[in-house]
Amino acid sequence: MSINVLRPADGWWVVLGDHAVPVGTKATTTAELLADRAAVRQAALSAEPGTPVADLVALSPVTAPCRVVAQMVNYRSHARDSGFTGDIPPAFFRKASGSISGPGEAVVRPSFVRFLDYEIELGLVMGAPLPIGTVIEERDLPSYVAGLVITNDVSAREIQLTKTQFYESKSYPTFTPTGPHLALLEPEDFAHLPDLRLRLSVNGELRQDRTLADMIVRPAQALTLLARFQTLDPGDLLLTGTPGGTALKAPPKPVEKIASLLPPAAKWKAFFKSQAKNPRYLRHGDVVTATIATPDGRIDLGRQRTPVTDANRPT
Amino acid sequence: MSINVLRPADGWWVVLGDHAVPVGTKATTTAELLADRAAVRQAALSAEPGTPVADLVALSPVTAPCRVVAQMVNYRSHARDSGFTGDIPPAFFRKASGSISGPGEAVVRPSFVRFLDYEIELGLVMGAPLPIGTVIEERDLPSYVAGLVITNDVSAREIQLTKTQFYESKSYPTFTPTGPHLALLEPEDFAHLPDLRLRLSVNGELRQDRTLADMIVRPAQALTLLARFQTLDPGDLLLTGTPGGTALKAPPKPVEKIASLLPPAAKWKAFFKSQAKNPRYLRHGDVVTATIATPDGRIDLGRQRTPVTDANRPT
Repeated sequence: MSINVLRPADGWWVVLGDHAVPVGTKATTTAELLADRAAVRQAALSAEPGTPVADLVALSPVTAPCRVVAQMVNYRSHARDSGFTGDIPPAFFRKASGSISGPGEAVVRPSFVRFLDYEIELGLVMGAPLPIGTVIEERDLPSYVAGLVITNDVSAREIQLTKTQFYESKSYPTFTPTGPHLALLEPEDFAHLPDLRLRLSVNGELRQDRTLADMIVRPAQALTLLARFQTLDPGDLLLTGTPGGTALKAPPKPVEKIASLLPPAAKWKAFFKSQAKNPRYLRHGDVVTATIATPDGRIDLGRQRTPVTDANRPT
Repeated sequence: MSINVLRPADGWWVVLGDHAVPVGTKATTTAELLADRAAVRQAALSAEPGTPVADLVALSPVTAPCRVVAQMVNYRSHARDSGFTGDIPPAFFRKASGSISGPGEAVVRPSFVRFLDYEIELGLVMGAPLPIGTVIEERDLPSYVAGLVITNDVSAREIQLTKTQFYESKSYPTFTPTGPHLALLEPEDFAHLPDLRLRLSVNGELRQDRTLADMIVRPAQALTLLARFQTLDPGDLLLTGTPGGTALKAPPKPVEKIASLLPPAAKWKAFFKSQAKNPRYLRHGDVVTATIATPDGRIDLGRQRTPVTDANRPT
């Protein structure tokens, strides 16, 4: 059974039902906590009554700085939304770890961003170094992945698409809400990963709802591909892609073909003119909720609830 | 006057003509050395005879791990080579710092890469933290940038173009030869940046040769744009783009327009079929040399000499 860890401002806590008990550890970073698993296990066996979880304000259980790597287009349903046909070469990009925020903190829209979008993603938290050239089979995954978190890969679409490199558009502060739970897995939990269901709602309207069955490149293969060029260390975070249902939806094929003949500036101008009528992008005052869990609750990453606010404006 | 620092395996040395003297410092990382500028200045005043520079084997003066950020298309001549017309939105991408190698180490071609290319770039080494939202004017640059290095942003073109995100294609081990000199600048040196001339040759044939006058987004503006979403710390590295002359050259416009109507896989198949006849890509046994300096030698980043080797094959 997995152990759910929370990180309020005063340290690390283990969730036991609707209560939580503090972990007796000096760890301040996620990597340090992962090196002190004994303290976590001891807290999980605690007979203390603990504190109601509802009374704790959880920060991100993944501490920065760390490496944040993300998989591009990795669910079939999102590939369709994005207008991909045929083979999709697996690709990665980086996010600044300064974009990590807590599971209840506001997502802040920079003043120059009009097309703010959400992407619920399963986050893998590394538990061991990943050296260059590592080949990971499914059965090896528990040796490398310590736990799981909910992440929202918030995206400024007009920056992402016009700059072609995804890095900036997904790296502004508060663009990676993470947590609340860091679910530390036991080896036998990994067989249940395909049952994980990702759900994201905006103002109570369900927008994304898929299980990992829809995923294209699964975690063991993703880490093998990443290890061709990127080492990872404990506490680093891999975002594994988002399912369909984002606000962004590619235009139909004939429109795309015509647009491909325009100079890039004209093409994007036409595209974003059409997107201005799309009501699904995030606005000041919206509330995004996100959950990831197996149906039986064996793995349960908790619930994010992040309001959206404009920069320099009170909620 | 700038001070040129070398990093052989045994520590840090200051270059004085054709000799070098060791720096009395406990620094092991670039950030630690930058925090001990007094020791560097003291070595620069040394009256010791020193050791011939030719007897020292320099490693990269930028130590990993650190953040490595790069500017996409940032010289007008390279924009033309790459088929860009009209405005180019400034964009950044990340490279894994595990790709950093020494100025005399081999560039190793992975077995799955056919189109291996070079890109000489001026590297800025940060000397102070860059918080989010920092706005840097030209006159502020000396407060943030400690020094300069030669870098080669080695690129696997078929990975870069088919995956669209540049991160993987430029991050394999040895894909960022760096050094030999870390030129630590005094504030008055910064006025001479536009005179810096970048030159890269393959087997003695000059391929790239431009000054910074050809640059699009200059360092102060680049750091201001980067600070919208990425914090930096001392010892982090910003690659500022490459001038024209790479092996890759975009096909003429009419060919591009036709290709844009093909599905991506077919388009790239046709493109790389045409590139297979291009003799300018790097091969086993090639030697890449690179220099960056002002004509008067006031700033001189030394000379890289990196052989190219295939993975799993002796030179």
